[in-house]
Amino acid sequence: MTIAVRAARPGDGAVIHAMALELARSHGHESDFSARPEDFETALFQPGAIVGALIAEHAGEAAGSAFWHRSFTTFRGREVMYLEDLSVLPRFQRRGVGRALLKACAGLAVEKGYPVVAWMMMDWNDGARSLYEAAGAEIEDGMCLCRLQGEALSRFAQ
Amino acid sequence: MTIAVRAARPGDGAVIHAMALELARSHGHESDFSARPEDFETALFQPGAIVGALIAEHAGEAAGSAFWHRSFTTFRGREVMYLEDLSVLPRFQRRGVGRALLKACAGLAVEKGYPVVAWMMMDWNDGARSLYEAAGAEIEDGMCLCRLQGEALSRFAQ
Repeated sequence: MTIAVRAARPGDGAVIHAMALELARSHGHESDFSARPEDFETALFQPGAIVGALIAEHAGEAAGSAFWHRSFTTFRGREVMYLEDLSVLPRFQRRGVGRALLKACAGLAVEKGYPVVAWMMMDWNDGARSLYEAAGAEIEDGMCLCRLQGEALSRFAQ
Repeated sequence: MTIAVRAARPGDGAVIHAMALELARSHGHESDFSARPEDFETALFQPGAIVGALIAEHAGEAAGSAFWHRSFTTFRGREVMYLEDLSVLPRFQRRGVGRALLKACAGLAVEKGYPVVAWMMMDWNDGARSLYEAAGAEIEDGMCLCRLQGEALSRFAQ
């Protein structure tokens, strides 16, 4: 299958939104998903944007996307690329789309001078683990993601 | 113990560097630490900075710091605050410095309109877990941090 990866363009907000929603669904978190297509359009194409996206296409049809944001590591004192979402539509899975997107992210990171591409993975996701290990990623298990939000955030902030 | 938390000011790069190094040491990762004081000074105070820092002081002496960067969640389609480091110098630990810094981060997030403060924790860190749970944070176990860097990044990018 021929996969072409390109940078997101103005107007791609809807397709990126659909990919993010699909990823949320596949992890059973659809009920926590509240983003709108225009949120992506704004975030990606406003001046000083801190996010970027790549779209993988097969025969002109969107098959997957990578959504990243600028991040910073205090270990290196440098900006790095953080890959927030790597999403492949179900009918295109297991056909190299994820690998092509990850490879394009790596290329973009090198081009931008970012020394690291970092991302999170669920520890049960063996398919993803194989892909990432084959790409040469170091995988650190035993992490927890902490979130202070909603009522709890307002309450603790006071 | 009286703790005052303030925003980092130009000239604080050295103290923030010292705190980040201390945190790397306490996690046994000193050999991976290559940041220089001037990296923090530049990152924090350049136009369009994506990072920020708070410093906790006791009697005018720096006791700890919080270092955060702008992040983005595709679930909400919004910018959020990502807390990269929460560091307390050993002689000030277990005295409420971490809590005061986290609370100040929460206040800053609310002030800036960020709906979430997110951060990572090692799953063995029971002291941190107690603090975060008491603050009202949701903690998701079973995550892995993946990093593509150095030779592996250059190789995969080609």
